[in-house]
Amino acid sequence: MGALPLDNSHLPLSAFIDPAGHNRFEVEALLHQTVALLVEEMTRASARSLLPDPMGAQQLSQWAQQWAKIPEQSVAADVLLDVVRSQLHHSMNAAHPGYIGHMDSIPTTMSIIADLLVAALNNNMLSVEMSPVFSRLEPLVMQQLAAHFGLDLADRDVMAGGVMVSGGSLANLQALTVARNMAFDALATGIVKLSQQPVFFVSEVAHTSMQKAAMVMGLGAQAAIALRTNTNAQVDIHDLKVKLSQAEQSGQKPFAIVATAGTTVTGSIDPLAEMADVAQANNLWFHVDAAYGGALIFSPAHRHLLAGIDRADSVTFNPQKWLYITKTCATLLFKNVDVLQRHFRISAPYMGDDSQWSNLGELTLQGTRHPDILKLWLSLQHLGQAGYADIITHNIALTAQFTEAVRSRPYLQLASEPQTNLVCFRLAPKQIAAEAWDHLNEQLQQYLLAAKSPVFLSLPTYRHQRWLKAVLLNPYSCTTTIEHLFEQLDAFVQEHVS
Amino acid sequence: MGALPLDNSHLPLSAFIDPAGHNRFEVEALLHQTVALLVEEMTRASARSLLPDPMGAQQLSQWAQQWAKIPEQSVAADVLLDVVRSQLHHSMNAAHPGYIGHMDSIPTTMSIIADLLVAALNNNMLSVEMSPVFSRLEPLVMQQLAAHFGLDLADRDVMAGGVMVSGGSLANLQALTVARNMAFDALATGIVKLSQQPVFFVSEVAHTSMQKAAMVMGLGAQAAIALRTNTNAQVDIHDLKVKLSQAEQSGQKPFAIVATAGTTVTGSIDPLAEMADVAQANNLWFHVDAAYGGALIFSPAHRHLLAGIDRADSVTFNPQKWLYITKTCATLLFKNVDVLQRHFRISAPYMGDDSQWSNLGELTLQGTRHPDILKLWLSLQHLGQAGYADIITHNIALTAQFTEAVRSRPYLQLASEPQTNLVCFRLAPKQIAAEAWDHLNEQLQQYLLAAKSPVFLSLPTYRHQRWLKAVLLNPYSCTTTIEHLFEQLDAFVQEHVS
Repeated sequence: MGALPLDNSHLPLSAFIDPAGHNRFEVEALLHQTVALLVEEMTRASARSLLPDPMGAQQLSQWAQQWAKIPEQSVAADVLLDVVRSQLHHSMNAAHPGYIGHMDSIPTTMSIIADLLVAALNNNMLSVEMSPVFSRLEPLVMQQLAAHFGLDLADRDVMAGGVMVSGGSLANLQALTVARNMAFDALATGIVKLSQQPVFFVSEVAHTSMQKAAMVMGLGAQAAIALRTNTNAQVDIHDLKVKLSQAEQSGQKPFAIVATAGTTVTGSIDPLAEMADVAQANNLWFHVDAAYGGALIFSPAHRHLLAGIDRADSVTFNPQKWLYITKTCATLLFKNVDVLQRHFRISAPYMGDDSQWSNLGELTLQGTRHPDILKLWLSLQHLGQAGYADIITHNIALTAQFTEAVRSRPYLQLASEPQTNLVCFRLAPKQIAAEAWDHLNEQLQQYLLAAKSPVFLSLPTYRHQRWLKAVLLNPYSCTTTIEHLFEQLDAFVQEHVS
Repeated sequence: MGALPLDNSHLPLSAFIDPAGHNRFEVEALLHQTVALLVEEMTRASARSLLPDPMGAQQLSQWAQQWAKIPEQSVAADVLLDVVRSQLHHSMNAAHPGYIGHMDSIPTTMSIIADLLVAALNNNMLSVEMSPVFSRLEPLVMQQLAAHFGLDLADRDVMAGGVMVSGGSLANLQALTVARNMAFDALATGIVKLSQQPVFFVSEVAHTSMQKAAMVMGLGAQAAIALRTNTNAQVDIHDLKVKLSQAEQSGQKPFAIVATAGTTVTGSIDPLAEMADVAQANNLWFHVDAAYGGALIFSPAHRHLLAGIDRADSVTFNPQKWLYITKTCATLLFKNVDVLQRHFRISAPYMGDDSQWSNLGELTLQGTRHPDILKLWLSLQHLGQAGYADIITHNIALTAQFTEAVRSRPYLQLASEPQTNLVCFRLAPKQIAAEAWDHLNEQLQQYLLAAKSPVFLSLPTYRHQRWLKAVLLNPYSCTTTIEHLFEQLDAFVQEHVS
């Protein structure tokens, strides 16, 4: 047991990495064995299935039932690594170039390396004392990111910056909480005192985290007033103005407008500048949920798609999506980061103070937090802006090829004009009654999944119908991936539509 | 560049792990190099300093300023790994057996292994489709944990279970949100409609996440009504009854009582059964924040300390603390997990359904979430309940030794009677004026940090004074650690108190 000073120990030798190195041989072997497993599996991800098949899913449920019990005695590491290998085989295989159904893809190598190192180090983003390096790096990198979005341009008297949070839903919740606290002076005394119902406006196709935020914040999910969208799934400015006026007339109190840059189903970008105009004219907080589309800021050729984002009061941007950082990695950026001090901070008396650096646990919804900054920082350093620009250009070019392939087939229909790297489309053949299209597209999805060159498209519900969604995100997806997909799709049409 | 089909690529060869294995040699070398670095550093953690010294902190700030910039071109992996090595040297060194100042310690080896694997796999706890293995494993393990706390005993008609969230603050926020939504039917329509201010009751020394939750939920931070505590930092039941009655008389509407099992500063456990009685008599939700103390459930010898926890409606328990899982790893357990479906769930129309398994993104504050279940599950398997019981017994025995050493010295004072494995104490020599004690203890903290056998004690503020806090958590801390600490403390007293 080396130096572990426990009596009668039931602990395995490699339970911890002995800080004096007495079990170095064992833990080193175990870690290298894990790397070997990882490399073996991830370097042949292209040869594995994309999803567990239905039979696999059934077995999986049985397996989970069997393994969920917490054992009395230690199970050997070798046994566990064998189980983990079979877990990997039954997991979402997003590294496969044919897995293009969600905003989930292959992670950067530096993300993996960073997650390994921060795990061993186990620092805590709660306070500067508990993460002296990462608590300094995070606000500085957030400042840089805020500047990339132009948030530092509007007002030189305030400091743009932000915080990292564990996922975009938390970023949206925190942004709206700050906006509400500011509008209604609600930090200490809440909103029950109000005579008017606070509301905010957001696209009908925005992320559900908006309703979730309204619910958690005590506004009620209905306080997220849904705005109609045009045929390209973008907020209709006229509807925004109408709904705003209706809310005021009915005695509600608007406090924020939310735009989306990269919607979940079609990747659409709302008219940011026009929405900023309305927000400004009505003195409302302007939040942009650029969780997905924000990455375009790194592409000189495509950042114009985000025009107007520099006018946001707050921006959600998730490097866990189009920057390929492992989950979770999300940021919340502010034009004036000082609002966190004034309209969000709950101070913790038991934490030490540092004159120059903030204890980030006081400025976020979370207290203890994983150091997500290392994987973001390492990946930005390793790929560089130019590397990310290359990938984004590649993704957008593939999207154009994909869109062209849809357009050239009369039996296919686009849900909306692709604006980023998502193509949402469906099989809509005139020969078959429209009522049968939902089922037909479900069949097509399964057909493509089982095809010789398998492709996974997701099957979202959009405007009450089922569609097929492609997200051209994986850097290893290529023109051949798309050619095969459409060959197989055509074969399906041959078989099923006559 | 192998198979990466990008033109004019600025990407480094090892940016991603090629799913067809074309860069296998490079990424494999990089990962093994990272493991070598990790093992080298962590197996000599005992020889490194506990915290960066003040000079180091200054250099660190300059370093962070220099490195925060996002580079245009790729920086080589070797250069980055060198930088990371120096980051490790300046981080919190919680693996050191003398680092006993916070509830942060050395992680299990299986946590590190799991974090490495889930990073590469990059699955998403948002939906069953995106994490087929982990979305099944999580609810089953949560069911097991809930049963460990006895939450399944009260009512056989409901199903005990829970969800994992990224930190205890989110667990407390979600528990209180569910309680509020249930009490006031607030999910859809919020709380502005209410004629009475909702309030809940919580110890004056509870975690600040309680005020934070009240603030975010729109109740206002003041809605977390602070209860007086006895000399052992436990909620005074009489004060609870008085405050409850006062709140009702002043027109407020109580909806929950929160107990703490393991307070931040002294590790105290509130009188759970008595608080459950009051909650039950008044038809209030009973939440137990056992983020820290919950681990005692794994020790047959000590789980009696949690008597009454089986009567909770919800329990926060963080394996990231006393189960040594890497951060973050937190759970929220319910007596009736179905409340999440009825009083929290916001459904996402774009996600697929599975008849048997829930999309966990709909049942938590977060949408996309890191698969924390693998590290928890692997660690429970690898250490076993018996392994954890050994460690907890060891920790509690050391705490007794530590407490005895404090008691035997007339110039030392205990903040409260240790109930778990925290000792909060201070130097309070009669020869020196009480006004000078705060400063004296700050000096002592620094002295111990710089001593021959360095020890890090934190310096919390408790009842308006500075104290020294020891958390006997590290399994490598031993009787010698404590003997050295007190020898050095005595030497300090010799020098400074005469």
